[in-house]
Amino acid sequence: MFTGLSAFPHTPLRDDAFDEAAYTRLLERLTVAGVDSITALGSTGSYMYFDREERRRVAQVAVRHAGLVPVIVGIGALRTSQVQKLAEDAQEAGARAVLLAPVTYQALGDDEVFDLFKDVTADLSVPLVVYDNPGTTHVTFTDDLYARIATLPQVASIKIPGVPADPDDAAARVRTIRDQIPGTVTVGVSGDSFAATGLNAGCDAWYSVIGGTLPVPALTITRAALAGDHAAASAESARLQPLWALFAAHGSYRVTAAIAEHLGLVAANCLPRPVQGLGPVARARVAQLVDELRLDD
Amino acid sequence: MFTGLSAFPHTPLRDDAFDEAAYTRLLERLTVAGVDSITALGSTGSYMYFDREERRRVAQVAVRHAGLVPVIVGIGALRTSQVQKLAEDAQEAGARAVLLAPVTYQALGDDEVFDLFKDVTADLSVPLVVYDNPGTTHVTFTDDLYARIATLPQVASIKIPGVPADPDDAAARVRTIRDQIPGTVTVGVSGDSFAATGLNAGCDAWYSVIGGTLPVPALTITRAALAGDHAAASAESARLQPLWALFAAHGSYRVTAAIAEHLGLVAANCLPRPVQGLGPVARARVAQLVDELRLDD
Repeated sequence: MFTGLSAFPHTPLRDDAFDEAAYTRLLERLTVAGVDSITALGSTGSYMYFDREERRRVAQVAVRHAGLVPVIVGIGALRTSQVQKLAEDAQEAGARAVLLAPVTYQALGDDEVFDLFKDVTADLSVPLVVYDNPGTTHVTFTDDLYARIATLPQVASIKIPGVPADPDDAAARVRTIRDQIPGTVTVGVSGDSFAATGLNAGCDAWYSVIGGTLPVPALTITRAALAGDHAAASAESARLQPLWALFAAHGSYRVTAAIAEHLGLVAANCLPRPVQGLGPVARARVAQLVDELRLDD
Repeated sequence: MFTGLSAFPHTPLRDDAFDEAAYTRLLERLTVAGVDSITALGSTGSYMYFDREERRRVAQVAVRHAGLVPVIVGIGALRTSQVQKLAEDAQEAGARAVLLAPVTYQALGDDEVFDLFKDVTADLSVPLVVYDNPGTTHVTFTDDLYARIATLPQVASIKIPGVPADPDDAAARVRTIRDQIPGTVTVGVSGDSFAATGLNAGCDAWYSVIGGTLPVPALTITRAALAGDHAAASAESARLQPLWALFAAHGSYRVTAAIAEHLGLVAANCLPRPVQGLGPVARARVAQLVDELRLDD
């Protein structure tokens, strides 16, 4: 379950409420395309913006419409006891695994982050993906912290925030991480523009923003890289370079939401306010790219 | 209400639940000391770690035990609609004003921050304090953003994160802010070690962490500065320098929690896990300082 493409769909809103119909459409695209897993309520899925009841409902819908595709559910929250309750809800909903980022308001030290994972995994019946997302959590994982957390029970995978651009440096980076964690724990790359390099460098999985909205090109990269056809993976990533440039300028969260809106998959303004979608100039660029890169299939 | 000392008490926990009895004790210390306002559920009050029901209860207890002291209630949350619900709850509980920080998970642009304040103030019946706390929200306010938000209805005060250490630079900074906001909007300093300099430089208020646990020295500084006795304000702040050093090393949030624990005002481990209190060495230093600086009255 912790290899290949894990697709992170948006959790679309309509008039500030969870848009179950649109979410179902997104999920069906993913199962039809054949992604390896679906991560519901990741950062792309706006998990931190929903309350417990909403998150329970999203998890239930995700599991119901994912068919045979295993569903991983994000359980991050600011307080340990809240995370534990969300873990219970996710498991009751049928999540096959959970994803946990150490979200902060007050900054946390390494021991506090470790104890969060320790407290949560102690009561967990399903595997856990460690979610290293410094851009949103403002937590910087050291390799030592990876090593400590990776030995906890239930820890099955680490979602790393990216790899160096140079292929040799990327391979060295993945080896360095692997050397410090049990062989049973997989390493998954995130930061979509890094994905081909990361998979070619030996990552087992891609925890993918674009895969949640545009599974086909994401699968092209993933399947090629994991079959050893590094050139094909890199070529498809290079073809998507204009998209990566837009991600760099506006963030993958807002750009993929605009793509989903442009494709009619979700309603306008599908992001949780105060977050707003792209402005008109960037939206026009999104529409142009969808056309030029044939992203609409 | 937006001048003088606003005291920010902790919202203590006991076994991961709101410790109403300890909170009542903290509030009574503040009313006896004669603070000018109490801000419940500020960052020191751990607002982001509590759910809506808990926050409603904290606001009710704060208003009930504050006597004649006006209570400001923090309403920050990640989603605009959540903030609006918290604003309703705070007003129903009897809050005389609300405090709003633009909390982020996904980064927000200036227009998104502005629209958050616009959306929230549109429905508000009580005044609002703009809470600029870059260390926890990761939002950087520009002076232009202060100016735009300060013209919104109900905006009564801006809590700024500090002032330059040099008195002339501090006075220039406060003048720069004042020049861009309506004369009816007060400027309050935060960052306790800056307080004497900020008040001497013309800030109207001190939004104070230490004032929520140790109101007496905080009032000494505030009363002296606002009476024009800048030397006395600076002298009291200088006397507390060992405490500011501890704040710089460990953060005011954890240090004041340790002081409250040491003084027996709250139970051990009063902070919301995964946040943990100070380690034994820092706690010993806290105990020593409470004694040396006579902070126990």
